[in-house]
Amino acid sequence: MSRSNSARANSAYRSLEQRFTRISSLDGALSILDWDQATMMPEGGADARAGQLATLKLIRHETLCSPEIADLLAEAEDNDASQLDGWQQTNLARMRRSWRHATALPADLVEALSRAACECEITWRSARENNNFKALTPGLDVLLQLSREAASAKAAIMGCTPYDALLDQFDSGISAVVIDKLFAELEDFLPDFLPQVLERQRSLPAIIDPSGPFPVASQRSIAVALMRDMGFDFEHGRLDVSHHPFSGGVPEDARITTRYSETEFLQGLMAVLHETGHALYERGLPKAWRSQPVGRARGMIAHESQSLIIEMQACRSQEFTRYLAPKLAITFGDQAAWAPDNLLRLFQHVEADLIRVHANEVTYPLHVMLRYRLERAMIGGDLQIRDLPGAWNEGMRDLLGVTPPNDSDGCMQDVHWAAGLFGYFPTYTLGALAAAQFFDAARKDMTEILPELSKGNFHPLMGWLNDNVHQWGSRYSSDELLQRAAGTPLGTAAFKAHLRARYLPG
Amino acid sequence: MSRSNSARANSAYRSLEQRFTRISSLDGALSILDWDQATMMPEGGADARAGQLATLKLIRHETLCSPEIADLLAEAEDNDASQLDGWQQTNLARMRRSWRHATALPADLVEALSRAACECEITWRSARENNNFKALTPGLDVLLQLSREAASAKAAIMGCTPYDALLDQFDSGISAVVIDKLFAELEDFLPDFLPQVLERQRSLPAIIDPSGPFPVASQRSIAVALMRDMGFDFEHGRLDVSHHPFSGGVPEDARITTRYSETEFLQGLMAVLHETGHALYERGLPKAWRSQPVGRARGMIAHESQSLIIEMQACRSQEFTRYLAPKLAITFGDQAAWAPDNLLRLFQHVEADLIRVHANEVTYPLHVMLRYRLERAMIGGDLQIRDLPGAWNEGMRDLLGVTPPNDSDGCMQDVHWAAGLFGYFPTYTLGALAAAQFFDAARKDMTEILPELSKGNFHPLMGWLNDNVHQWGSRYSSDELLQRAAGTPLGTAAFKAHLRARYLPG
Repeated sequence: MSRSNSARANSAYRSLEQRFTRISSLDGALSILDWDQATMMPEGGADARAGQLATLKLIRHETLCSPEIADLLAEAEDNDASQLDGWQQTNLARMRRSWRHATALPADLVEALSRAACECEITWRSARENNNFKALTPGLDVLLQLSREAASAKAAIMGCTPYDALLDQFDSGISAVVIDKLFAELEDFLPDFLPQVLERQRSLPAIIDPSGPFPVASQRSIAVALMRDMGFDFEHGRLDVSHHPFSGGVPEDARITTRYSETEFLQGLMAVLHETGHALYERGLPKAWRSQPVGRARGMIAHESQSLIIEMQACRSQEFTRYLAPKLAITFGDQAAWAPDNLLRLFQHVEADLIRVHANEVTYPLHVMLRYRLERAMIGGDLQIRDLPGAWNEGMRDLLGVTPPNDSDGCMQDVHWAAGLFGYFPTYTLGALAAAQFFDAARKDMTEILPELSKGNFHPLMGWLNDNVHQWGSRYSSDELLQRAAGTPLGTAAFKAHLRARYLPG
Repeated sequence: MSRSNSARANSAYRSLEQRFTRISSLDGALSILDWDQATMMPEGGADARAGQLATLKLIRHETLCSPEIADLLAEAEDNDASQLDGWQQTNLARMRRSWRHATALPADLVEALSRAACECEITWRSARENNNFKALTPGLDVLLQLSREAASAKAAIMGCTPYDALLDQFDSGISAVVIDKLFAELEDFLPDFLPQVLERQRSLPAIIDPSGPFPVASQRSIAVALMRDMGFDFEHGRLDVSHHPFSGGVPEDARITTRYSETEFLQGLMAVLHETGHALYERGLPKAWRSQPVGRARGMIAHESQSLIIEMQACRSQEFTRYLAPKLAITFGDQAAWAPDNLLRLFQHVEADLIRVHANEVTYPLHVMLRYRLERAMIGGDLQIRDLPGAWNEGMRDLLGVTPPNDSDGCMQDVHWAAGLFGYFPTYTLGALAAAQFFDAARKDMTEILPELSKGNFHPLMGWLNDNVHQWGSRYSSDELLQRAAGTPLGTAAFKAHLRARYLPG
C-alpha cells in the first residue's frame, strides 16, 4: 500500500490523481448531503436539496468527462504503465472504468434516464400504497426502455452483453454467465432445503416472542454499545435514524442509520449490526489511497459480504447470542424470551416469506433469484412490464411456494426497478456467498474468532477482515480477494455448508 | 418581483442567470455542509470536510471567474440593460459585484490569505486560552499585511479607499465617511447616556435572578414554541445546538442553532430569538429570485437589523415579557424572578461590560466603535499589531470606563481579526440603527404590532417586515429600504430615541 513509487510515475498519471482527488471530494460532499436528506432535512427542503445534488452531480460528470481526462488517461496508459506500481496500475484502471461509465452514454440519454427514474420512483410510492400496478406501468415501461438503450450503449463500448454492462456498474468483473452457474447451484439446493428447515422448526417447541414495549433510548444504548464492541469509533462516525437503514458518509466520518419500533426491537438492532459491517469496511479502506478510485470499496459484492459477515455470520451465531442475552435482560427487564437458546431461535427463524427485506438467510437468495430472472428477461426484451405481475407471482409460487396477495407485496415491493436500478439485485446474494466463504476462512485461520464473540470481543474477526478485505480497497476484485483469503473464487459451497450447519444441525 | 420581462432579455443575461443558478446551488451545498460541521460532524471528520469545502469553494471560484462570465457580463451590460426590468438590472449589477470581488485578487493572494487566516484562527484559540498575545502577534501581523494588500487591490479596481473596499464585502454601499458621521453622533450620546442608565438602575430594587437548574429539554420546548409564534416553519427549518449560535442553511431549509446551559437560560433563549430573526429574513426572500444574486439578502446591515428587531426591539419589550412570563413559570416552576416586571428588568439590564458578545443594547455600539477605530488604523498602517493591546485597553477606558484584566478578555476576545474579517464589525451597530428605524416605522404604520406581542401574536410585525424588507432581497440597499419604509436613510435618531424611551423612561 506504499506510495513510494509515485515519484517515478510521470505527470499524466499524477495529473489524473489530482483530478480524481477533486472527484473524491465531490463524492464526499454528495454523500453527506444524501445522509442529511435522509436523516435531518425537513420535508420542505427537498426542492432546494434536489438542486444542490443535481448541480454537484453535473459538476462531477463534467469533471470526469472533460477532454483533458481522456487525453491524460491515454497518455498514462501508453507511456507510464510500466513505471507504475501495482496500486497505481489498478488505480489507473479504476479511473478508466469510471471514465468509461461516465462517457458511455450521450448526455440526452443520461438526462432522460435521470428524469424518468425520478418520476417513476414518485409514481411507485403511490402506486404501491394504492396497490395499483397499472398506474406504474407507463412510467416503468419508459424507464425500462431507456435502461435497455443505456445497457446496449455501454455493452457496445465494453464489449459485453447489455445485462453484463448493467452488472458492471455495481461490481465490475461479474457476469451473468457466472451468476447463472452460482444461482443454478443454489436452485438445486434451496427449494429442497427450505421445506426441511421449516419441518424441523415446526418440530421444536414454540419460540417465545419478547414482550415490549422496548424504549427507543434503551434500544439505542444497546446499539451504541455493540457498535463500540465491533470497533466503531464515534469520533469518526454517527448513528442516526432514517426511514430506511443505510450506511453513508465518508471513511473518516461514517454515518449509519437504523429505525426503531417500540413494539419490535429485532429489526432495528439487526439493521445496526448490518450497517456497522458496511461502515467498518469503509473505515478500514487504505488511508493512503482514500482520495483515489483504488482506495474505494471494490463493489457491492464485497460491501454486502462485510455487512452480512457481521449481521448473519457473527451476530446470529450461538456465541454472540450468549453475549447479548444478559444485556437484553438488563436493559429491557428479564423475561423468558431472553434465554440464550430462545434468542438464538429468534435470530435464526426461517419462514417462506413474501417480502425480501424481511427475509431470512435461507429464503433471501430465492427472492433475489426471482428478481434476477425477471430483470434479465426485461432487459433482454423477453418480458413486458404489463406481464410482470403474473411472472412475479408464478416465480414466487415456483421458488418459495407462496403467492403474493397483491402487487404491493408482490412485484411492487422493492423500489429498485422504479429507481432504474437494473443489475443490482444479484449483488445481495453474491455478497452472502462471499460472506460465508470469508467467514469460513477466517474461522479456520483464527480459531478464537467465534469463541471470542461469546465475550463480545470482535477484535480477532475485525482484524482478519481488515487484513484480508478492508485494507485492499479496490486493489483486488471480490474473486481475487476470495482466492487470496479462502483459496477459491466466489462459490456456493461455503454458503450451503453454513446453512446446513446452522439450520439442519446434527 | 415579476419575471415577465425575462422573455425580452437577451441571451447573455439569460446565460448569466443559468450560471448563477449553479453558483447558488454550490452556495446552498456549502451552507448545509458548514451547518453539519458545526452541529453533527464528529471531530474525526474535520480533515475530510475541509477537503470537501475547499473543493466546492474552488469550483465556485472557477465558475465565477471563468472567461465566459466576464464576456457575458460585458455583453449584457452593453446591449441588454435597456431591455431588462428593475429586478433584472439589479440582478446584473449584483452579478458584476460578485464577479468583481472574486476576480479582484490574484490567485496567489487569495491562497495566501486563506492559509494565513486558517493558521491564525488556530493560533488565536490557544493564545486566547493562555492569555498570550505575543503568540498571536506574528500570525496576526502576516494576516493584517495580506489583508491590507487585498484591500488596496480591491480599492484600485473599485475606485474607493482600501477600508471601504473591505466594508463592501459585507454590505455594499456603505462607506467610512457615512460610518464616521453616524458613530460620531453615537459618541456624542452614549458616553453621557450610559452613566445615567447605570445610575437609574442602581436606584431601583435589586433584580431577582432566576434560580435553576433549567432542564435543556424545557428550554428547547420554550424555544420551539416561541419560534412557532414568530412564524418559523419547522417543515422548512430546524433548531439545533452548536458551540456558537448561528443561522445557516438555505431559504427553503433554514437552520438555526443555540447553546443551552442548565444554570442559565437567558442567553440560550435570546440566541434563539436572534437567530430566528435572521432565519425569517432568509425565509421571506423573494421566491422567484431565490437562485439569483438579487434574491439573496442584501448585506449584513439588513440581516443584523432583522435579528435585532426580533431579539432587542420586540422580545425585550414590556409587551412580550408579559406573554413570556407565565410560560416560564409553567415550564420551570413558579418563582419570584418570573414576575413580568422583574423579567423585563432582566431583559433590559445594562452594565459596562468587557465582552462584546455579552453586551447589552446600550454598550454594544461602544464595543463596535472601539473595534472600528482600531481596524481602520490597522488597515491604514497607523496601528501595529504589537501596539494593539495598549490601544484596546485605552479605548475601553475611554469609551466604557473599564479596563480589561487581560488580553484574552481584551483585544483577543473576538475571532474576527484572527479570521481575516476586517470591515465586518461596523455592520453590527449599523444593523442596530436600522432595526430601531424599521421598528419605529412599523409601529407607526401598524399600531397593533406592540400590543399584539403581549398575546404572542407576531403576525402584524412579521407581515410588515416581509412587506418592507424580506421580499425585496437585494433589490434595494439598506438605505433605500429605510427610505421607502421609514422615510429616512440610515441614521441614529430612532436608535437614540429607542434607548431613551427604554432605559431612561419618564
